[in-house]
Amino acid sequence: MAKIKVGVAGYGTIGQRLADGVALQGDMELVGVADLAPTLAIRALKEKGMPYDLYLVNGADKSAFDSLSIPTCGTFDDLTDKVDIMLDSSPGGIGAKNKEIYEKKGVKAIFQGGEKNEVADVFFHGYANYEKGVDKNYLKLTSCNTTGLIRTVDCLDRAYGIEKVAITIIRRVADPGDYHRGLTNALQIDKAPSHQAVDLMTIMPHVDATGILVHTPVTHGHIITVLAKGKKKITREMALEQFQKHPRIRVVSIDEGFLGNASLFKYARDLGNPRGDMYEIGLWEDSIVESGDDIMYAINIPQESVTIPETMDGIRAAMGMQRTREEGTSATNKYLSIGKFK
Amino acid sequence: MAKIKVGVAGYGTIGQRLADGVALQGDMELVGVADLAPTLAIRALKEKGMPYDLYLVNGADKSAFDSLSIPTCGTFDDLTDKVDIMLDSSPGGIGAKNKEIYEKKGVKAIFQGGEKNEVADVFFHGYANYEKGVDKNYLKLTSCNTTGLIRTVDCLDRAYGIEKVAITIIRRVADPGDYHRGLTNALQIDKAPSHQAVDLMTIMPHVDATGILVHTPVTHGHIITVLAKGKKKITREMALEQFQKHPRIRVVSIDEGFLGNASLFKYARDLGNPRGDMYEIGLWEDSIVESGDDIMYAINIPQESVTIPETMDGIRAAMGMQRTREEGTSATNKYLSIGKFK
Amino acid sequence: MAKIKVGVAGYGTIGQRLADGVALQGDMELVGVADLAPTLAIRALKEKGMPYDLYLVNGADKSAFDSLSIPTCGTFDDLTDKVDIMLDSSPGGIGAKNKEIYEKKGVKAIFQGGEKNEVADVFFHGYANYEKGVDKNYLKLTSCNTTGLIRTVDCLDRAYGIEKVAITIIRRVADPGDYHRGLTNALQIDKAPSHQAVDLMTIMPHVDATGILVHTPVTHGHIITVLAKGKKKITREMALEQFQKHPRIRVVSIDEGFLGNASLFKYARDLGNPRGDMYEIGLWEDSIVESGDDIMYAINIPQESVTIPETMDGIRAAMGMQRTREEGTSATNKYLSIGKFK
Amino acid sequence: MAKIKVGVAGYGTIGQRLADGVALQGDMELVGVADLAPTLAIRALKEKGMPYDLYLVNGADKSAFDSLSIPTCGTFDDLTDKVDIMLDSSPGGIGAKNKEIYEKKGVKAIFQGGEKNEVADVFFHGYANYEKGVDKNYLKLTSCNTTGLIRTVDCLDRAYGIEKVAITIIRRVADPGDYHRGLTNALQIDKAPSHQAVDLMTIMPHVDATGILVHTPVTHGHIITVLAKGKKKITREMALEQFQKHPRIRVVSIDEGFLGNASLFKYARDLGNPRGDMYEIGLWEDSIVESGDDIMYAINIPQESVTIPETMDGIRAAMGMQRTREEGTSATNKYLSIGKFK
Repeated sequence: MAKIKVGVAGYGTIGQRLADGVALQGDMELVGVADLAPTLAIRALKEKGMPYDLYLVNGADKSAFDSLSIPTCGTFDDLTDKVDIMLDSSPGGIGAKNKEIYEKKGVKAIFQGGEKNEVADVFFHGYANYEKGVDKNYLKLTSCNTTGLIRTVDCLDRAYGIEKVAITIIRRVADPGDYHRGLTNALQIDKAPSHQAVDLMTIMPHVDATGILVHTPVTHGHIITVLAKGKKKITREMALEQFQKHPRIRVVSIDEGFLGNASLFKYARDLGNPRGDMYEIGLWEDSIVESGDDIMYAINIPQESVTIPETMDGIRAAMGMQRTREEGTSATNKYLSIGKFK
Repeated sequence: MAKIKVGVAGYGTIGQRLADGVALQGDMELVGVADLAPTLAIRALKEKGMPYDLYLVNGADKSAFDSLSIPTCGTFDDLTDKVDIMLDSSPGGIGAKNKEIYEKKGVKAIFQGGEKNEVADVFFHGYANYEKGVDKNYLKLTSCNTTGLIRTVDCLDRAYGIEKVAITIIRRVADPGDYHRGLTNALQIDKAPSHQAVDLMTIMPHVDATGILVHTPVTHGHIITVLAKGKKKITREMALEQFQKHPRIRVVSIDEGFLGNASLFKYARDLGNPRGDMYEIGLWEDSIVESGDDIMYAINIPQESVTIPETMDGIRAAMGMQRTREEGTSATNKYLSIGKFK
Repeated sequence: MAKIKVGVAGYGTIGQRLADGVALQGDMELVGVADLAPTLAIRALKEKGMPYDLYLVNGADKSAFDSLSIPTCGTFDDLTDKVDIMLDSSPGGIGAKNKEIYEKKGVKAIFQGGEKNEVADVFFHGYANYEKGVDKNYLKLTSCNTTGLIRTVDCLDRAYGIEKVAITIIRRVADPGDYHRGLTNALQIDKAPSHQAVDLMTIMPHVDATGILVHTPVTHGHIITVLAKGKKKITREMALEQFQKHPRIRVVSIDEGFLGNASLFKYARDLGNPRGDMYEIGLWEDSIVESGDDIMYAINIPQESVTIPETMDGIRAAMGMQRTREEGTSATNKYLSIGKFK
Repeated sequence: MAKIKVGVAGYGTIGQRLADGVALQGDMELVGVADLAPTLAIRALKEKGMPYDLYLVNGADKSAFDSLSIPTCGTFDDLTDKVDIMLDSSPGGIGAKNKEIYEKKGVKAIFQGGEKNEVADVFFHGYANYEKGVDKNYLKLTSCNTTGLIRTVDCLDRAYGIEKVAITIIRRVADPGDYHRGLTNALQIDKAPSHQAVDLMTIMPHVDATGILVHTPVTHGHIITVLAKGKKKITREMALEQFQKHPRIRVVSIDEGFLGNASLFKYARDLGNPRGDMYEIGLWEDSIVESGDDIMYAINIPQESVTIPETMDGIRAAMGMQRTREEGTSATNKYLSIGKFK
């Protein structure tokens, strides 16, 4: 079977990782990536010898690339002519404009969390609603926090049934290398409920969800505490059993040395993972506590990379490569070496 | 009636504020403060012209004070001879040793959160269990987070009945000016349940409590999210009504400009409060959300000063100055100008 | 002699402190402050009982103040009718527009560092060029870093002659309570030379200056290292002798407990200074080292309050209240209790 | 020629990178690494399939490794029996004790910056004094800041002659994943002169050096500003020309997107460098300014990895693999792919 041809729009924090993820899928071909200006990410691409072909989006100044001897392969139009599906990680709002091009070309697309839900046919999560995405033209991925959160809630829900969750998101405010959205010596609170709780209800409409989000001045991963109410009592052992079986959840403990979000980043670097990324979320075994009949636990969201596997799932669903959740996520996991450590 | 004579052991972050608090009570007399070495706090006391008399604890090197021309008034023994009650804010563990002296002298004492519960007859909170402290010899105050948390849970409990709480503590890791307990670009998690949840159950044994604590690299106040389950459904309006009536809870909103913990610190400075302190906790009106039948909200704990009013309450209880919660806390509030803004 | 009537435009971080500073000057009268919206600073003013009269600048929505029961005394026009001189701490660029009003009314004005030099007749520093400001209509103050830096360079220059300085500014990136200009886990560098070095040369044209500025994610004071080349060799002792005599330089040491910028903030709080402010810069005695014939040292700049004394000097110069540097700065120091600790 | 057999003592932040560095040298063989406990770094080694053999240092509890199924290859004694030279990155002070073993076995060793100079025959820097290390038994490497600093000072010195330097070290306080040496919202100053200036004079005794060090709460690389006085005037262009030719100096600019230390870390991740490490120091072209006849510039030190190349140089010198600076550093650069981007 011919490989599915994939393009990436926007070679930023997410776009770079989407491209790397696609390049690892044995049944996909990365046709190229598109961007606007010779950012550090593009300069690094050049220094690495252009492993990916580069196309220029509308409005790009080709001479800026030429003067730096950065080879380009054509326009956004050229790229979209060659692909079956685009992964759109453009800045928020641009994706909606790009969609007009995709529609004209008959190209499918998956949008990231920055776009409005209306841009897509389905608001998608590989584990929670894979089948809804099958054969659809336009999917929108859940954002990083929601993606990781739903992994755990869906995991408990399939095993025991979940009625309600209340979350506290302790949000990292910037990625390493960001200078424009910092926060210095402050915790900043958002109006409740947080959009992640609302988004969870869109994906899992049978669950009642609310939550509070607090921004913190760190860069290495969000931490979310989750209080989940089961249809029946879920004990600590019952929850742990399910979490340990999930390929995209890495159960860790403080005693092992995982003291916080920075430990997981350090561990990914020590593993030799490219960019020090991790596809799995961390879940602290020693954070799981029972609250009456409810269960409470804390997870770590590696914000730069967590949505990559679910986006690969999305390609598989939209292109009909696998038609079930089990087959689709398994294929993604195999190519991304997810869950090997289990 | 003669004023109650009060001494303070340990002139650190808490001790300084206890001394300031006692000095404001019209029916108490601050006899003096005791410390070990000429710290910055002591140097500032000297530069201010020694508004409080200084005594030296055992082990202090008097010549170090003399060489800096810092006047001292005697030993710890001298101080404890002159007082009715000691407020002990010595480093953790020292209070238990000091207790032997207090017992010998027949002096009452109130210990801060760093000591073990066993040091005291009663683990005390001015609003939650005032009457238990009346006429007792030794009280131990709840820690800063627990003190602020209980204000809100007790407030709802008295109005509506509370069965269960689950908390997430987003803890500031150091005070302004601390260099020894920092945390840099990391969120650090503690084993659950957090001691604050356990402490709440000691004070309010009819409430089931658990929680997760995450340390964050900031200095201006903890933020706690609370999920509380009432005996019956508590609506947003019902919760807000009670919070707004509580003298030691300041209901604020993001729209007013209270974007996070640093806003409350800034506001206290702008108010002209000494040291930029605030006795009230902040409670964000726009954080209050219903979670099914439960209620969820976020509070801000000014860690340096929040326990001062409840310690004043403790003096009133232990000395029998007022015999009821209403009278005791009202007297404290009056002298500390708490709730004036209501 | 009638008191000089002073108004303040912009009641933000600097404006609040300018108002407080003027209120302390025995020979000045604070007529009022003007602002645009009911910020936290204005809300605090109300909670304090309106110690200062409040006027509304053009564009302000009076109903927003009325609905919060914040009393106002008139318009910016009304305020400027009543004053001899305005202290303009409006956001950058607004001052230049306000100047048209000041000119029309025949009111003098002092602008803060955010305005362009062209707005004023003299770029002013109380110690370095007081006499240039005498009887002038429009002065612009040096920015916070430049103000503190020049105190030390002028101090050495008057004693020994300075030919050249090279500075490294380790800049705090935000004030406590700022959420919009943060920086998270990064040091950010500016193009050299830093404007502070250029500004120093404008004020002290006989000194060659250059420097590099690095932003750091902290809020409690800039640290500047200065390498100064004297006309002859300046020893450590010679430098220290001059620094210790300067009223607006506080010589501190690590051994005393001044471990960094946060220690000075803590100390100011412990002193009971309003808002925890300090008018003096800190200079670390144990940072002073000789570099061949040059001298090197490190200073701490309390960014929120450091320019207040030099602005008071500016009023004295512009209004001709004192005609010499010695008389002008002495009067300011007396009313602000600066140098009392010497 | 047989490959030189190398062991690594201490598999921490530096030890891991030393092992990786040795593994890349075509003319060396990494025999194994030794450590005490199953840290995160060791757990990652296991998850990667044990690419390096693991030995246990004295005091290690083998059962702790066995229970985690981490294979070990013997004791520290076994490791030192098999090697020609040990790279000792044990915690400070342990290296001196290990030296007794090395001496008994007739094994050479290179110690990291945490040990005292007396432990070694030569205090070593690959570019500044390579020949001094040739055939020596025990070398000690300069610390991370000194290593990077000397690259630039030696570079200018060889071209133009340097008489004096004055440095300001803006020090990152922790590595990513450190929780025990944090600093929160504070700049902390050390007593001057900083040890790095003193160390520079030990390596380059003809240069007078002093400096001030300030700790900052960040993790991604120190920034140092250097003021260097040449034997004759060094212009901006003269300095830049030399820096651009140096293989281990990467000249970057703000306009390219290198806004600060975090940009260099991000760029190394984007390059796909293992662990997101970089062997080169960054030097900002737009920081270079002339200060009279002196030259001033700012550099970025990637603290985790910067000493690896100079340690490889040290092996080459001590083992006599190459007998000149040019040959030794060129061999290291070739195997570590340093300077390829030039």
